[in-house]
Amino acid sequence: MKPIQVGLLGIGTVGSGTFNVLQRNQEEIRRRAGRGIEIAMVADLDTERARSVVGDTAKVVGDAREIIANPEIDVVIELIGGYGIAKALVLEAIAAGKHVVTANKALLAVHGSEIFKAAAEKGVMVAYEAAVAGGIPIIKALREGLTANQIQWVAGIINGTTNFILSEMRDKGLDFDVVLKEAQRLGYAEADPTFDIEGVDAAHKVTLMSAIAFGIPVQFDKAHVEGITKLSAADIKYAEQLGYRIKLLGITKRTDKGIELRVHPSLVPTKRLIANVEGAMNAVVVHGDAVGTTLYYGKGAGSEPTASAVIADLVDIARLHTADPEHRVPPLAFQSNTLVAAGGELPVLPMSEVVTSYYLRIRVADEAGVLAKITSILAGAGISIDALLQREAGEVSGDSEGSQGVPQTDLIILTHATREGDMDAALAQIQQLPTVLAPINRIRKEELN
Amino acid sequence: MKPIQVGLLGIGTVGSGTFNVLQRNQEEIRRRAGRGIEIAMVADLDTERARSVVGDTAKVVGDAREIIANPEIDVVIELIGGYGIAKALVLEAIAAGKHVVTANKALLAVHGSEIFKAAAEKGVMVAYEAAVAGGIPIIKALREGLTANQIQWVAGIINGTTNFILSEMRDKGLDFDVVLKEAQRLGYAEADPTFDIEGVDAAHKVTLMSAIAFGIPVQFDKAHVEGITKLSAADIKYAEQLGYRIKLLGITKRTDKGIELRVHPSLVPTKRLIANVEGAMNAVVVHGDAVGTTLYYGKGAGSEPTASAVIADLVDIARLHTADPEHRVPPLAFQSNTLVAAGGELPVLPMSEVVTSYYLRIRVADEAGVLAKITSILAGAGISIDALLQREAGEVSGDSEGSQGVPQTDLIILTHATREGDMDAALAQIQQLPTVLAPINRIRKEELN
Repeated sequence: MKPIQVGLLGIGTVGSGTFNVLQRNQEEIRRRAGRGIEIAMVADLDTERARSVVGDTAKVVGDAREIIANPEIDVVIELIGGYGIAKALVLEAIAAGKHVVTANKALLAVHGSEIFKAAAEKGVMVAYEAAVAGGIPIIKALREGLTANQIQWVAGIINGTTNFILSEMRDKGLDFDVVLKEAQRLGYAEADPTFDIEGVDAAHKVTLMSAIAFGIPVQFDKAHVEGITKLSAADIKYAEQLGYRIKLLGITKRTDKGIELRVHPSLVPTKRLIANVEGAMNAVVVHGDAVGTTLYYGKGAGSEPTASAVIADLVDIARLHTADPEHRVPPLAFQSNTLVAAGGELPVLPMSEVVTSYYLRIRVADEAGVLAKITSILAGAGISIDALLQREAGEVSGDSEGSQGVPQTDLIILTHATREGDMDAALAQIQQLPTVLAPINRIRKEELN
Repeated sequence: MKPIQVGLLGIGTVGSGTFNVLQRNQEEIRRRAGRGIEIAMVADLDTERARSVVGDTAKVVGDAREIIANPEIDVVIELIGGYGIAKALVLEAIAAGKHVVTANKALLAVHGSEIFKAAAEKGVMVAYEAAVAGGIPIIKALREGLTANQIQWVAGIINGTTNFILSEMRDKGLDFDVVLKEAQRLGYAEADPTFDIEGVDAAHKVTLMSAIAFGIPVQFDKAHVEGITKLSAADIKYAEQLGYRIKLLGITKRTDKGIELRVHPSLVPTKRLIANVEGAMNAVVVHGDAVGTTLYYGKGAGSEPTASAVIADLVDIARLHTADPEHRVPPLAFQSNTLVAAGGELPVLPMSEVVTSYYLRIRVADEAGVLAKITSILAGAGISIDALLQREAGEVSGDSEGSQGVPQTDLIILTHATREGDMDAALAQIQQLPTVLAPINRIRKEELN
């Protein structure tokens, strides 16, 4: 049978990896897929670079539309990224009857509904395993491996840059800014690291997982997004003393009221496997009502790990493209006519309605009665305390004598589960106390069991 | 569309779980599969028990062949277990044109080639996600998620009973026999635990993973199988002091000479995630040339976790059964006409050809020159030493004065990688030394990075 003809849009890191792995393992892949998979055309603005990767094995063009217009091409791989030209090209490829493979989480998290609709109308597949957690086959696990389950929650370390930074902060006791510079020097963080460190990249990915876990449309605009820039070495150290690690998690959870969809730093018990995922590695925990807790771990980025996911999608397409479109795996796991409407019976909840537990660090004047005032405000708001530490502020920051010349103490409080809105109100009150000397640090805490 | 009609053979723990989860989540499952999945008939020798589970929702029969003979049944689920009647019924179901879902690792590890061949000839699917690692979608990950890769090795904790026993031995410092009795009392081990504690169950599962990882036929008869019955609390404690945990691993590895296929206790560095998998949980590490190291974790047994895998297979069948049989996922991951013949270019290697590193515990008389003799034998065999501990035997066993009245010492040695055959020869020599007072304990060591 004739090999599947593939056109590659963009041949940077992931594109080169895809080309190289397809070449190196072509025999093995053909034995699995039942037919060959061939990159026949490559489009890149830098045609020089493209030629240096593919040599004479594929036609190199500067204009992606030459690939889309070519009737010989069965599948288009979009590795350009972003919402602009990538969106136009993906929609044009679909309109031309091509199957599409993409690693573009930003595009799908924001414009997924439009793209999947167009694909369904045209009877083509849009595959995106590489968009979430790189080489880990997590989309497949959620969409096919756990179909028996009512998924209850998904929580993942899905951004390698921030996990590398947090691991280094903990290992070396350094603050965020210092480690970020080191990460940039080592190539673990980009020159403009905003999307990573502010949690946007993780939010794109958890938005996709939320949709396929719960059968809802992609709703990136409803996600709560918070990064790691405000974390201090002190918080990481205190968390450790209490038996927790701090990880940037993308979390989505089904509750009676609706769907939680949020990215923020979280305390996780040190004894959980996911708390021990270090460096740039990724891991996703999925809890289903039948299967219980499962975890998937691997490299979340990089040339060949991401290529591994892109090619797995190509093999799926090679296997499935002769199947009745009605019987293929639906792109969002649920049949498109059964997706719950945005804001319908499973609305994405505002952050104030999220229920979770908290780590609080409150810098206070070291004088009598402070603790009593704070605990009484918490009790008044119905928030109960799970653990409490009191630490000389000087232990960490080296300046236990604050600018006002009063001795200062850090109160570290772990709470039981409470509504975020109630916590906001209580913290606003506590912040007003004259004995509270600095903005309160509040980090959410997840048990993940 | 009419619901898929399913016949269930055997309604014990997993069968009941399958029935219950299908009932509870039927709406969610239908939204994913695109059509309903209905257990229409149940066969069990104990028709009373069967009726108490399914009530009036399904027809209960005592004779499984009534299900196979029924033209309305699309899929047969085999949950009887064993090689006997289960094999006959699976082959008859295939002959009758039914798709088959089974959790029967013993059957497939031994008779898989015959069964898959019959299914291919008939154009039906045989799905077996539940046969390996319960609810963890590891078959899907290997067979579909990692298709881009040349898989290099797979290593897994794939027997919950033995992992529970090893976890308890470590936690409580108890010996094997004591913990086994406790595990039996708690229901974690069966009255006859042979298949679990001797490694046979794990060997069935790793045989299946070996086939789908490397494109070779199932070859259970070539597997090296060793259980945990000879492990002592002392070994677990010494391993811990050296930075390792002891786990019963199923390992299969591709080497230049062929395929390693083996089950035995292994030291694993404590810092690896898999070393921290405790209790009855399962985890499988897969290393591919493109993706690097990935890990899959979850419950490996139990009613609903196993049902989760059975139902995932049913959904796959519901989605794929209209597909061209040539384009479905092949049961052993590779197209059947591309499987390497048993003993062909990828033979399963005898254990003497396996290359790994070792933990040795040698009980010796505490006298001058003993260590020199042992290390010189190892050096002569080309085996180099990575670490060495010397411990008063009394620290552990409480009898540092042996029966011969000489003070005794435990020498604990970690070696670098060596051929098992060379290690066997060296150990035979060392065992002959008059100063070696007891049978040498030898445990293999895997770095898994």
